Amino acid sequence: MHCDTVWHNAHLMTLDAADGGLGTVRDGIVAARDGRILHAGPAASAPALEAARRIDCGGRWIGPGLVDCHTHLVYAGNRANEFEQRLQGVSYADIARAGGGIVSTVQATRAADDDTLTAATLPRLDAMLAEGVTTLEIKSGYGLGLEDERKQLRVARHLAQLRRVEVVPTFLGAHAVPPGRQAQEYIDEVCDTMIPAIAVEGLAEAVDVFCENIAFSRAQAAQVFEAARRHGLAVKIHAEQLSNQHGAELAAQHGALSADHIEHLDAAGIAAMRAAGTVAVLLPAAFYFTRDTTVPPIRQLRAAGVPLALATDSNPGTSPLTSPLLAMNMGATLFRLTVDECIAGFTREAARALGRHGRIGRLAAGLDCDLAIWDIDAPADLVYRMGFNPLHARVFRGEPA
Amino acid sequence: MHCDTVWHNAHLMTLDAADGGLGTVRDGIVAARDGRILHAGPAASAPALEAARRIDCGGRWIGPGLVDCHTHLVYAGNRANEFEQRLQGVSYADIARAGGGIVSTVQATRAADDDTLTAATLPRLDAMLAEGVTTLEIKSGYGLGLEDERKQLRVARHLAQLRRVEVVPTFLGAHAVPPGRQAQEYIDEVCDTMIPAIAVEGLAEAVDVFCENIAFSRAQAAQVFEAARRHGLAVKIHAEQLSNQHGAELAAQHGALSADHIEHLDAAGIAAMRAAGTVAVLLPAAFYFTRDTTVPPIRQLRAAGVPLALATDSNPGTSPLTSPLLAMNMGATLFRLTVDECIAGFTREAARALGRHGRIGRLAAGLDCDLAIWDIDAPADLVYRMGFNPLHARVFRGEPA
Ligand SMILES: [Zn+2]
Ligand SMILES: [Zn+2]
Repeated sequence: MHCDTVWHNAHLMTLDAADGGLGTVRDGIVAARDGRILHAGPAASAPALEAARRIDCGGRWIGPGLVDCHTHLVYAGNRANEFEQRLQGVSYADIARAGGGIVSTVQATRAADDDTLTAATLPRLDAMLAEGVTTLEIKSGYGLGLEDERKQLRVARHLAQLRRVEVVPTFLGAHAVPPGRQAQEYIDEVCDTMIPAIAVEGLAEAVDVFCENIAFSRAQAAQVFEAARRHGLAVKIHAEQLSNQHGAELAAQHGALSADHIEHLDAAGIAAMRAAGTVAVLLPAAFYFTRDTTVPPIRQLRAAGVPLALATDSNPGTSPLTSPLLAMNMGATLFRLTVDECIAGFTREAARALGRHGRIGRLAAGLDCDLAIWDIDAPADLVYRMGFNPLHARVFRGEPA
Repeated sequence: MHCDTVWHNAHLMTLDAADGGLGTVRDGIVAARDGRILHAGPAASAPALEAARRIDCGGRWIGPGLVDCHTHLVYAGNRANEFEQRLQGVSYADIARAGGGIVSTVQATRAADDDTLTAATLPRLDAMLAEGVTTLEIKSGYGLGLEDERKQLRVARHLAQLRRVEVVPTFLGAHAVPPGRQAQEYIDEVCDTMIPAIAVEGLAEAVDVFCENIAFSRAQAAQVFEAARRHGLAVKIHAEQLSNQHGAELAAQHGALSADHIEHLDAAGIAAMRAAGTVAVLLPAAFYFTRDTTVPPIRQLRAAGVPLALATDSNPGTSPLTSPLLAMNMGATLFRLTVDECIAGFTREAARALGRHGRIGRLAAGLDCDLAIWDIDAPADLVYRMGFNPLHARVFRGEPA
């Protein structure tokens, strides 16, 4: 077979095993043609390959490029000052009264033009790419008005022109009640004006909603999901982070791709997610940063066979994190996920959470050739270490990136 | 005044304020001559400087190079597999029975020659340098026998020939009871043979001991300290990590530079540390990684005026961390240290813990010109973010490194 590139002298994490594990292959090869994987498997049983380019990986490990399926990467402003104030004993309420909290991010994001917003985001994106990310989801939700939500989504999409990465934009107009508005009146605008406009302009693939007693009710989330589905957009939810609003169950009933956070998820929510194939997206860095003490029901999710993904939740208020590898360590250390679950959670299962299970997240013939090549002894190194980046090379659509 | 280099158009964290804070200076300059700081302060009130080289910092922040005052950086082997096994439910006892735990690191370190040990350590050192470290302490303690302890200390010192960094070697022969030995008989060897040899060869500045019910008793620690002082070496201690052995109090009575971990420290220990000027070295990443729940008595230490340093404790068993910035975030998030305390803990107070308060850790005339130049909006950014490295440049002894 003719191909463009063969990576050889490598071990593989294919994430494509029947047992749902890492699908490791010692002494494997990956071959790519036209940006896709032509073959991935043991070198010994590979077909004859005529390659334009052969890359010796020196015994390193090749896995799928990382997929971060939950981020709020595009925003302006800086909330390090609030972090500092809280450590000095200033209350959340006092910070909010002084214009802090999400309102400060909304104001800064509204005030920024496209170029400013792009420039603010690029260092965060570059940190992600430096750890092998090849696809990431980016939510809006700091505009809280059609024009500014559009701007955030436009910038998110534009990042994929500036860097070799796939960006999956999600509309999160229902992130918070905008200052000076009423929740129901704003949700009506989200459903009747914003979702139709976003859909028609093709600015987002999915619609997300923050269902919580400090944000939007279950009934309002249902209204958002109905509008989204009416306009052909997928749905997902921020659910059960601070309390059990039964949001995950609702989302699953609407065929949600994922329910995210879910610290307070109950058995009915788990059953609904399993029935719908809704992915559980775990966000341990937000749990860590907010000093949460309620761990998601991992054992029960695992027992039910609900797919488990893991993400950074990169955002300025509750997870100023730009390291997928650190999210993996936190998934293991704080949530007791296994090494296999952490790695699958940032590859195969994250792809599933983005509706891309058939296209990315595994090393298998026909999938996009997005690779992360790691300078490690074994896959567990990716999860075990803290604050160390062993990425050797990143490959996007078959080309070193 | 003539000088070699002036860094201008910068903000400064001098760590040299009378109030013990960050000593920030907006629009400041740093001037260096012969590797030392000639002047650091506001540009407006600077003396006339004739500089061979002027470096425009573009409005970035200059602080002292970071000082990591507690690491076990030199070792061979890899314990990611144990981490993976524990997540799969294998007990510590079963791992130890299978030759895991510290014994596996000791075996791998004993088996490695100098070059192998150096090659294994360099990527960890480089990760530290990439975050602005200019001085770090490195302990022995994985040889547990004179020849192999010597080898670890020799490698530690050699690193400073390979990279532009100051290495402070500490002899930690009393880290664990070597396999097949008796604790008291081994401590006698540490005191009667090893400490005298290490001292005479100038291989270490200080002697450390792990005082814990799973390691060495208070009486054995006292024996080690007496031998160390007899041979002109400073002392420090791993104390009160798992239980209160009153080790910090003992160490302070021996004039210890620092008492490290101290989760279970009591009021008598705090009083003794204050009286002796012993620095409290806090290790939040070990607390995090081992899922400890007992936070050190920070408020009481602060109230007593005990100096607080912060370190990575980089080691394969309980803190596989190579990011000082992440240790700062954990210090704030898990231990509620303030931003100022976290930054001082990796500069001024870490220098104090290494007996170098008069030479490094602050921006002040006469001190070594070791700088970290940061691409940040404000000092709090260093502590607030997770998994992001904003280092712009590192300067060691007046030269870009
Ligand atoms: Zn989120
Ligand atoms: Zn230690």
